[in-house]
Amino acid sequence: MGAAGPARGVAVSPLGEAQVAAELAQTPGWKRSGKAIERTYRFPDFKAAMVFVNWVAALAERANHHPDMTIRYNEVTVSVWTHSDGGLTPKDFTLARGIDAL
Amino acid sequence: MGAAGPARGVAVSPLGEAQVAAELAQTPGWKRSGKAIERTYRFPDFKAAMVFVNWVAALAERANHHPDMTIRYNEVTVSVWTHSDGGLTPKDFTLARGIDAL
Repeated sequence: MGAAGPARGVAVSPLGEAQVAAELAQTPGWKRSGKAIERTYRFPDFKAAMVFVNWVAALAERANHHPDMTIRYNEVTVSVWTHSDGGLTPKDFTLARGIDAL
Repeated sequence: MGAAGPARGVAVSPLGEAQVAAELAQTPGWKRSGKAIERTYRFPDFKAAMVFVNWVAALAERANHHPDMTIRYNEVTVSVWTHSDGGLTPKDFTLARGIDAL
């Protein structure tokens, strides 16, 4: 690649506030939390929560986009943002909807 | 059970500060965090972190004592306290050492 070629990763500009609001409107159950969007899922028990965590993990690996997850017995909070781009990008909302579809 | 009988669960008094300090001295790598003790483990990648999370989950189910866990790509923070007793008890330190021994 020449000096004018793209950097190793493809830079994506973070979404603006209006775009984030429009994406959130299409992603029910998710809310803004700092730089990220997050959703808390509740399950009958810890085992069921862990099954969900593993499904999310498999999806994250396939997408090469890894949300933070916090497990509190039967609750799992999933938090998504694009660290490399410093904000929310379309792939965060794609991942959020993919998690909802599990 | 008569009115003077024990409640459904066996109540355990939370440890006092001196006892917590003594237990922590025998549990290297763990530190106090609010009501809980916690430790962050780092792994080569997300997959390795998820393997650890699943081992902890299996141990937690066997012990019927479930720590909170937060996964951030290759880092897992484990937080242990005894909700039912409102503080730290000996079983928290037993679980912490069991996790270290995985």
